[in-house]
Amino acid sequence: MQINPRILKGFRDSLPEQEIIRRDMFHNLEKTFRSYGFMPIDTPALEYKDVLLGKGGGETDKQVYEFTDKGNREVALRFDLTVPFARFMAMHSKTVNLPFKRYHMAKVWRGENTQKGRYREFYQCDFDIVGLDNASSDFEILLLIMDSLKNLGIEDFTIHLSHRGLLNAFLSHEGISEKSVEILRCVDKLKKAGTKTTKNMLEMLVGSEKTKKILEYITTGHDDPLNKGSILDNLIKLSGGPSKHSKRLQDIIKFLHGSGKQDKVILDPSITRGLDYYTGVVFETFLNPLPGIGSICSGGRYNDLASLYTREQIPGVGASIGLDRLLAAITEPEMKETLTIHEKIHSDVMIFCMDESLAGYYAKIADCFRKKGIKVDIFHAKKKLVQQFKYAEKKQIGFAVIAGGNEFNNNTINMKNLKTFEEIKDISVEKAITLIKNKKL
Amino acid sequence: MQINPRILKGFRDSLPEQEIIRRDMFHNLEKTFRSYGFMPIDTPALEYKDVLLGKGGGETDKQVYEFTDKGNREVALRFDLTVPFARFMAMHSKTVNLPFKRYHMAKVWRGENTQKGRYREFYQCDFDIVGLDNASSDFEILLLIMDSLKNLGIEDFTIHLSHRGLLNAFLSHEGISEKSVEILRCVDKLKKAGTKTTKNMLEMLVGSEKTKKILEYITTGHDDPLNKGSILDNLIKLSGGPSKHSKRLQDIIKFLHGSGKQDKVILDPSITRGLDYYTGVVFETFLNPLPGIGSICSGGRYNDLASLYTREQIPGVGASIGLDRLLAAITEPEMKETLTIHEKIHSDVMIFCMDESLAGYYAKIADCFRKKGIKVDIFHAKKKLVQQFKYAEKKQIGFAVIAGGNEFNNNTINMKNLKTFEEIKDISVEKAITLIKNKKL
Repeated sequence: MQINPRILKGFRDSLPEQEIIRRDMFHNLEKTFRSYGFMPIDTPALEYKDVLLGKGGGETDKQVYEFTDKGNREVALRFDLTVPFARFMAMHSKTVNLPFKRYHMAKVWRGENTQKGRYREFYQCDFDIVGLDNASSDFEILLLIMDSLKNLGIEDFTIHLSHRGLLNAFLSHEGISEKSVEILRCVDKLKKAGTKTTKNMLEMLVGSEKTKKILEYITTGHDDPLNKGSILDNLIKLSGGPSKHSKRLQDIIKFLHGSGKQDKVILDPSITRGLDYYTGVVFETFLNPLPGIGSICSGGRYNDLASLYTREQIPGVGASIGLDRLLAAITEPEMKETLTIHEKIHSDVMIFCMDESLAGYYAKIADCFRKKGIKVDIFHAKKKLVQQFKYAEKKQIGFAVIAGGNEFNNNTINMKNLKTFEEIKDISVEKAITLIKNKKL
Repeated sequence: MQINPRILKGFRDSLPEQEIIRRDMFHNLEKTFRSYGFMPIDTPALEYKDVLLGKGGGETDKQVYEFTDKGNREVALRFDLTVPFARFMAMHSKTVNLPFKRYHMAKVWRGENTQKGRYREFYQCDFDIVGLDNASSDFEILLLIMDSLKNLGIEDFTIHLSHRGLLNAFLSHEGISEKSVEILRCVDKLKKAGTKTTKNMLEMLVGSEKTKKILEYITTGHDDPLNKGSILDNLIKLSGGPSKHSKRLQDIIKFLHGSGKQDKVILDPSITRGLDYYTGVVFETFLNPLPGIGSICSGGRYNDLASLYTREQIPGVGASIGLDRLLAAITEPEMKETLTIHEKIHSDVMIFCMDESLAGYYAKIADCFRKKGIKVDIFHAKKKLVQQFKYAEKKQIGFAVIAGGNEFNNNTINMKNLKTFEEIKDISVEKAITLIKNKKL
């Protein structure tokens, strides 16, 4: 009896065409992280359920893959990389060098409603600086977002920056801080639900006068897309005067100007990151040609990362790149330019099989090409030439090496450009390599 | 109430020092695979239980992490990459280009007895050619093993090659093929249990005369470590004369000689790969300085990969590198040379924090270095210099940039070699880059 080959709802296979681009993105990001001195870590996919869910009861819990293992332990698959990192820091804060700069790219699992076009298995890519609470480290995370995207070939984006502490100061100043959780929940929906719905929700919560104030605060600068005005001055006024929070934003803006990187960042007080654990700056990043797909990189400052596990206070700032969202984005027509920088080719050269008994000779030829950094695919079966050409075409291979018994005896090859069909016969492998390298064929 | 931060038995965190080497190994292997035209794929970590376990009941099943998900599906975490690949091929054989060369590096999970020093979460790295049954593709997998290890800096290893079909022909010739499962189980233990134990077990199974024959077969060449003798001739004789299986081995050996890669492969008829699904060549790879750790890369030919899911016959040949075993091996003193090729450094340059308000300037300096491929770690807090030096030392950083208000005003930096403590003052960033690149500091 055969078994029906199928995969779980919300899960996907990744075929070579997509997986090549994904892995190229990973390597590219990793290179940027390393150029900033950020180090990789890894944590288990499976953890104790109480370690991942804490006291539990939240919205997340319902989505978590959890079970009892054969040793009768309550376990769960990680649903993000932040909670395991908090646990990691509680256990290793003495071993790693503080301040600690790390990144982590790995899969997480959530049993989400797949109708929203979401997947139940996806990659996260987090990077953080922990052990410091200052403007310089907040600033570096913003720089790293910019460089990561730039190195991926993405130039047209904007980071929307805000500060949770400043928003809280404003709510306090208005005497409505006891309703901050509910207010944040409304404000967080502004971009999706629009101003009118947000206004109605807020009015039911705090009345029309306070709603007006809140809308004034969160839409400050929204009519000034280039961020040229005195947005921060306005926010300071609305929040009752200068504070350490406004000072932090001022410093970051000063550093951005000092480094010449101010153009990609705007102040946007409607960014709150919902009910997350952030305490300082918060930010979201949008692709200007594709604002509808939402933020592709979000994060902020949290000043008590590991409080669930330890009394040691570990402040930090970090961001998370939405890899799957970004991968979907760069295949959109609006982002065509970006995709061209990613390696899609399977191989540069294919060695045709003219005689199966020459496999040793073919391997020797391939070895010479590979030593010069040229990727070589050897066709292993003596099939009709048209079939071999078809295989090379499907794999978008540029050049063919065609060599049979005669060439073997002469220690030469025939080399064919598979786009122009130009062919040069009876040349040495070294000559062929020179021709390809110098684009002379 | 705080939660005790802890991880599950058999699971591990990977700290930067180890994770850097692991990721470097991954990239290195991947580069080799791609140079052979092998393409990456990915499959879900979680699958339907019946898809992974088939009709079930085996030894593996007891070790599998399985549960019922919230949609009432019986699911399991993958315990290897072969079964998901078989399912993948049954679903996508029409989409991917046959012959299909793929690799897959990913985590798998097994609830194994951890007392053996085994882990319950570990990486596998598989590469296969499917869609062909010939000597040329068997041969290419052997070449790819050699090149993968060589590019990892591992030169001193031996691939032990054998053929399951030839062994079966021998058992048939001796009239004991109906006991082949039990015999294979004994033979497979030869390297671990020794000849005496194996002999005793075989004698209980087939009597002393047949045992003598089996031992003769499986130890052929064991007194000829350089494989100079006529081992294959002996095996042909013992298995009742030439067959397509002996022809296959002959062809592979011919190809190895033809490519000049014969030195790393020996015939070793005691290799059987136990009760696995192999039908043709089988092989294991040992590090000559560390034979005790077992095979670091094993595999073989299977001629019916996806038979559990489809009537379509999909032949293939492939290998699996034991990444965790290899990672453990290269940190052993015997392999010291190997480790030196792996990048361990965190950053090349650290920019000291002399004045927190200069973060913008520091970022600008770092940018110049990074554009020249130099990794830069910025220290973000105005701590005592001795603390900053300590941080740089722990991270093995070679150079320090020290710049305060004066240097900012002059648009210069001071550059210090952290090993020799030589310092050059008041130079431009461009000058500093030239000095480092030319090793003049």
